[in-house]
Amino acid sequence: MDRGTLTTEFIRSLQDAVPADVVLTDQETLAKYGHDETEDLHFPPQVVVRPRTTGEVAAVVKLCARHGVPVTPIGARTGLSGGALSVKGGVGLALDRMNTIVDIDELNLQVTVEPGVITQVLQEAVAAKGLYYPPDPGSRGSCTIGGNLAENAGGPRAVKYGVTRDFVLNLEVVLPDGEVVWTGANTLKNATGYDLTRLIVGSEGTLGIITRAVLRLVPLPKETRLMLVPFRDERKACEAVAAVFRAGITPSALEFMERDAIDWTLRYVQGVSVSIADDTKAHLLVEVDGNHADVLMRDCETILGVMEQHDCQEVLFAETAAEKEGLWKLRRRVGEAVKSNSVYKEEDTVVPRHALPDLLAKVKEVGARYGFKSVCYGHAGDGNLHVNIIKGDLADTVWQHDLPKAIREIFTYTVSLGGTLSGEHGIGLVQRPYMDIAFNPVQLDLMRRIKNSFDPQGIMNPGKVLP
Amino acid sequence: MDRGTLTTEFIRSLQDAVPADVVLTDQETLAKYGHDETEDLHFPPQVVVRPRTTGEVAAVVKLCARHGVPVTPIGARTGLSGGALSVKGGVGLALDRMNTIVDIDELNLQVTVEPGVITQVLQEAVAAKGLYYPPDPGSRGSCTIGGNLAENAGGPRAVKYGVTRDFVLNLEVVLPDGEVVWTGANTLKNATGYDLTRLIVGSEGTLGIITRAVLRLVPLPKETRLMLVPFRDERKACEAVAAVFRAGITPSALEFMERDAIDWTLRYVQGVSVSIADDTKAHLLVEVDGNHADVLMRDCETILGVMEQHDCQEVLFAETAAEKEGLWKLRRRVGEAVKSNSVYKEEDTVVPRHALPDLLAKVKEVGARYGFKSVCYGHAGDGNLHVNIIKGDLADTVWQHDLPKAIREIFTYTVSLGGTLSGEHGIGLVQRPYMDIAFNPVQLDLMRRIKNSFDPQGIMNPGKVLP
Repeated sequence: MDRGTLTTEFIRSLQDAVPADVVLTDQETLAKYGHDETEDLHFPPQVVVRPRTTGEVAAVVKLCARHGVPVTPIGARTGLSGGALSVKGGVGLALDRMNTIVDIDELNLQVTVEPGVITQVLQEAVAAKGLYYPPDPGSRGSCTIGGNLAENAGGPRAVKYGVTRDFVLNLEVVLPDGEVVWTGANTLKNATGYDLTRLIVGSEGTLGIITRAVLRLVPLPKETRLMLVPFRDERKACEAVAAVFRAGITPSALEFMERDAIDWTLRYVQGVSVSIADDTKAHLLVEVDGNHADVLMRDCETILGVMEQHDCQEVLFAETAAEKEGLWKLRRRVGEAVKSNSVYKEEDTVVPRHALPDLLAKVKEVGARYGFKSVCYGHAGDGNLHVNIIKGDLADTVWQHDLPKAIREIFTYTVSLGGTLSGEHGIGLVQRPYMDIAFNPVQLDLMRRIKNSFDPQGIMNPGKVLP
Repeated sequence: MDRGTLTTEFIRSLQDAVPADVVLTDQETLAKYGHDETEDLHFPPQVVVRPRTTGEVAAVVKLCARHGVPVTPIGARTGLSGGALSVKGGVGLALDRMNTIVDIDELNLQVTVEPGVITQVLQEAVAAKGLYYPPDPGSRGSCTIGGNLAENAGGPRAVKYGVTRDFVLNLEVVLPDGEVVWTGANTLKNATGYDLTRLIVGSEGTLGIITRAVLRLVPLPKETRLMLVPFRDERKACEAVAAVFRAGITPSALEFMERDAIDWTLRYVQGVSVSIADDTKAHLLVEVDGNHADVLMRDCETILGVMEQHDCQEVLFAETAAEKEGLWKLRRRVGEAVKSNSVYKEEDTVVPRHALPDLLAKVKEVGARYGFKSVCYGHAGDGNLHVNIIKGDLADTVWQHDLPKAIREIFTYTVSLGGTLSGEHGIGLVQRPYMDIAFNPVQLDLMRRIKNSFDPQGIMNPGKVLP
């Protein structure tokens, strides 16, 4: 890819515009900010900028606009689609220093944060006041709110509470010309002009840089109940998912794990032991939350009834906080466990939830045909299936040349089911070649025109999302 | 406003493009489709088109694009901001014939509808299958889903469930050049490209015409409890609203009515009687819903405790379905009751919910200064206050010349509280002169560029939203 060269004049202007320690050009820093959690990709920026204020972000972006220099916003680099990689070089604009929780508004149940706040840090800060910020991506201990907003991150609790998008009231954004705007108002409802807020959410840093966010909070539920439900038949497990909702229950999490996912994770994580029958093929992890223990017990009984109708095996209820934590650790660390075993590619397919068994069957059928193994797990309640394709001892030529064809088959089938390419990881760099499967030329052209209306020079996170 | 003249050639092309009974030019029809529920405004289109299919909508829009003729999408004409008025003449494109519920997908909890389906008809159709579509604008018995989507309509249940925007998965849209696109996928999560879906929702027909929608459903709650809570002090009533959420309860409705609102409505509606103490100044109408009667009872006790801490008077619990219906009728028909008394203007202010008492006080202070009476009510749980300004015996000159200044003062104060102009009615024609209060030139320019990227000719619902 064309990465150009930054002029000495540009670097000097940068150094004049912001404090000296904001501009970094040493190789170590460039390398550090040149990768995220996407496969083994490395695209270092040519200069890293780590501003402390919106004013500094705006000053840097204004300079980039004047010189036509690419700007790639960088969060905690936990992304799985390569959104934070500086594929065209230029400025890597890291938001990690802007990590203040500005205000927790207990009267209005809102919180104002800078983009570099770690998601779990925010969750714990509001929980201390009896409040709840539900979006909880797997990487919540290290990912940041800015990245969550840029990718419209989800996580297990989305099935009941919604994704990041559903908790955003208002965003401060530095536009590609360096102007600073707020996108909306600090209100729960808003029918005033176009919804700039939700256009920015999920735009993966291609329309502007989020420098502050006002987020909605809800009361913290007082109780949770968690159960792990094994099945002999993956299809039956998937079918049970839709049946739970039809029984009138909206769980606070409804996760699916293939047998391999749980086996690999049990070998990988410390201090968690679960005994699994030889003929178990899949698990559902089901959580309910609320304020009344007796109600949760009744909900669990209803869920148990549904599970039994779908031929579940013996259900494991987490009795203590430690047991709950153990089961969640199993689920949250599947990705890491798989990654520790082999080079892999992770797809983030999403379909209407009842179509999940068909999608799973298709993944296995394509895998059998192309000769790859896959480990599947994800947010079954949302129809969001993470497909981890394992390189194992697959030949490099197959991995490089045939795999994209296999992925294309999986995505084409996903879209035919009413689904789409990404539920919560975004398109970024690595799913971009597949965008033509989800969108026709008219749709893509419309998105390009929107991009152009924000960023006519194309300097903001170039090389991402749109093919 | 410049309304131009349609050429005979254009009318003939229209008649060639769609079945004969789709194109209507008689005066009665033009007059009928020339008004909605906004004040006493009349702006008839020059021709009314009532298509039956997306193909017909596309054919009409293509012709309009070719001839540069304005197109105004028209729903059920229940709007309160003049969004459906053909202020520039041209084609009034009425969606009322496209009123089929295409599919209720019980497995995935989704419904596919045409835009002309009446909201209540949809709600009853899905309720018959144990499912729930919560958004319920006051006019739900006559308004349509297409209009709800265009305006991002809310209603009392938004406080727990969210507004129309939060229930949309995917939209079929005829763009201003006549091309037909789907905006997303039929999935609960979607991180694939820009969120065209939510850009269209609330764009008030200025970016395209919605011809089909896939909406999310939830399980129908089995039980509701409803109480009417009187207060001697409006401010105490408003303060109780924020306190309910702090007590960990999310009611399914939390409505505020000034004394006058309930008095006027009691005189206006038949068959509802509520006795009100002389010193009552305001009421809250509070609903909780769920699956367990005992839990709702506990929630009601918690709410009652909060209300008592805020000096409520004697609470009226609705004991029967008929009593619930009566109380809801009182709330839903306030707007009509006020309108039946006088010429009026309705504002749709929205603020962070704890700021509601300040907003209410400001409205009264401005009214005292300008000499107008106002009746205030609305969705207090969302901070959404409908301000009905009564003409009464105010002089026409004051109404026309001074009132806009008074409204400007109210909006300026609303925005200073972190609020905005419209919570759920949209900007349309009548709030458009105030958009500069909510947005600065940079924000407005950004919205104009988005508009331009969809509709470079400016034919789609011209004269609305953006000043």
